[in-house]
Amino acid sequence: MMDSETLLHELLSEVDVRINGSRPWDIHVHDPALYTHIWRDGLLGVGESYVEGHWDCDHLDAMVSRVLSGRVDARIQPQTLLKIGSRVVSTRLRDWLNPQRIARARKDVASHYDLGNDLYEAMLDSRMTYTCGYWRNARDLEEAQEHKLDLICRKLDLRPGMRVLDIGCGWASLMNYAAEHYGVRCDGLTLSREQAQLGQQRADAKGLPVRFILQDYREFQAEQCYDRVVSVGMFEHVGPGNYRTFFECVDRQLAKHGLFLLHTIGGAESTDRTNPWINKYIFPNGVIPSMAQIGQGIDGLFNLDDLHNFGPDYDKTLVAWYRNFDDHWPELAERYGERFYRMWRYYLLTCAGAFRCRSLNLWQIALTKVGAPLPVSVREA
Amino acid sequence: MMDSETLLHELLSEVDVRINGSRPWDIHVHDPALYTHIWRDGLLGVGESYVEGHWDCDHLDAMVSRVLSGRVDARIQPQTLLKIGSRVVSTRLRDWLNPQRIARARKDVASHYDLGNDLYEAMLDSRMTYTCGYWRNARDLEEAQEHKLDLICRKLDLRPGMRVLDIGCGWASLMNYAAEHYGVRCDGLTLSREQAQLGQQRADAKGLPVRFILQDYREFQAEQCYDRVVSVGMFEHVGPGNYRTFFECVDRQLAKHGLFLLHTIGGAESTDRTNPWINKYIFPNGVIPSMAQIGQGIDGLFNLDDLHNFGPDYDKTLVAWYRNFDDHWPELAERYGERFYRMWRYYLLTCAGAFRCRSLNLWQIALTKVGAPLPVSVREA
Repeated sequence: MMDSETLLHELLSEVDVRINGSRPWDIHVHDPALYTHIWRDGLLGVGESYVEGHWDCDHLDAMVSRVLSGRVDARIQPQTLLKIGSRVVSTRLRDWLNPQRIARARKDVASHYDLGNDLYEAMLDSRMTYTCGYWRNARDLEEAQEHKLDLICRKLDLRPGMRVLDIGCGWASLMNYAAEHYGVRCDGLTLSREQAQLGQQRADAKGLPVRFILQDYREFQAEQCYDRVVSVGMFEHVGPGNYRTFFECVDRQLAKHGLFLLHTIGGAESTDRTNPWINKYIFPNGVIPSMAQIGQGIDGLFNLDDLHNFGPDYDKTLVAWYRNFDDHWPELAERYGERFYRMWRYYLLTCAGAFRCRSLNLWQIALTKVGAPLPVSVREA
Repeated sequence: MMDSETLLHELLSEVDVRINGSRPWDIHVHDPALYTHIWRDGLLGVGESYVEGHWDCDHLDAMVSRVLSGRVDARIQPQTLLKIGSRVVSTRLRDWLNPQRIARARKDVASHYDLGNDLYEAMLDSRMTYTCGYWRNARDLEEAQEHKLDLICRKLDLRPGMRVLDIGCGWASLMNYAAEHYGVRCDGLTLSREQAQLGQQRADAKGLPVRFILQDYREFQAEQCYDRVVSVGMFEHVGPGNYRTFFECVDRQLAKHGLFLLHTIGGAESTDRTNPWINKYIFPNGVIPSMAQIGQGIDGLFNLDDLHNFGPDYDKTLVAWYRNFDDHWPELAERYGERFYRMWRYYLLTCAGAFRCRSLNLWQIALTKVGAPLPVSVREA
């Protein structure tokens, strides 16, 4: 069996990344403990070792883009028999347990979205939109997020007085924008107390007909159907075992001739797991859906009316978030600490790299019930 | 068990269609043999009985749209035990045989597309485009087809000198248009001798770099990869058991950064069979794909970059074809005969109804290999 140092050297040289090279995408190893981490924990170890400060890279995003383009990441696996065994066991366990069951989902959401509103206020646009912006005609993050919100409203063909349900509404940037500019009434589901509190304050300050509901999509029972349902950047937390339930819930909440817009990251290949480091430190139990999985989820329920891919815009969004985070770090450092800085940098820039090399997509998918009219607004928006 | 006459009466009244009523979507029963046909053969019997002249309907398309909207068609099943039994056996047989195997596909294609070029010349636009037109800014069928061809060329971002493969190229309307207006070189696959002969004549008359290849997509071995691959209205003949093979073939023929545009009818629900009358008389072994099935077909091979649904345009296209067919019938009657007239009317107008009530979609789907750049041309076309 090859030792981890030789393996890493070989894999990286395949994609023209050098250890201790001088180009911005080369990596600098400060501590050979990196190799032990890789041997023991594979990709999880690579990330943990970065957070520990064992290695560095000026342009993490560019390096990751190269690694994923060459698909060498899949060959970085834990080498210990114990890990291989535990992986088999955990795969079996996943079949029995629902990793995104309600109680677990509540905990997982809190672990990320309740980290601290100060962090997200520093990193995001003024509306706190924590999803991919739309950069086609935008000069900066603020515009990219406003254009994205407006794009969604136009695709949804919102008319005054309509009732809109937002599943996973974040800090209500979309609900507030839609209520203010399109005269609709919005209900939003979230499991994050921090989001609900700050979001409701922001809506109330403007006197908007926006209501937060602290419930899981599986618990929520609407009094009446909604004209529109939208879900932006929440489907990544649903998990393949719950896709069918998710779409059945949407089907129940949506009016007969209503329209559902699903905004989600999408993968080219079906899976039930995510990068182990992202899973452990950033989005526990998050899974990126494939079109096969979404297709099975909607089968017999919805017609697929439009799919718009603007994945490369997530690269720009993540880089803009990283710049904001980095600029504001002096104000955040005391509360979060140096290890958090490295963890957050690794999260934002490795994800940017994944979108840059098109390992990941960003899909906006328009769905209507079978028999409902084709929403021409979606294509023309 | 309810008798067929009562059953039909009850089902139709649910969707406000009357037997011997006076509205254009009501049906007129001339011969009670209709009920025997329904009892024995279900939906197949409904169509056969129409062709026999047992019943009529002024606006077949409007009637079918009502029936499918109310989903009462599924309740018209053969009532004889023999038929129920044979259905079970035939389902099992389908699992063992490939209904779209190459030899069979050759026969099935000939049975429809080699019916007679005079028929298709009378029915279609001047370029003989036998797929859904794009009516957004079109005044008539001729414009709708030209706009559709140009839409595809713009989505494909064709540049002079590019090599294009057209899988199921019909009479070469797309290849000839693309070669003439975009300066590309085209190879087209078809199994129809009639199409290849007339199509090649038309291309040669204009001196265009267009080549017909009389091969199945599974037989074809390209000398080099294509910059673009396109398939317009052929995927409906592939069959779920061959979807993976189809996409693997496209993957092999397409350049690394190439673009594949799939134009196909799409259904809301996965199935491996079609309406039994359509299957017996119009498109033997045709199957309408669902998104779940297409998603499984491309899993791990392609990124889904765009999906454009213009299903309602197929309603307009089919009605325009019917009008042309009906107008030209005096010239065709002697060769084809009265039963053919009724069969063809039933085919065109029942399909129009299925698109009108959104039982069927028309999808243009843009696909690239994982890692290829996002083709922005597709969304902006």
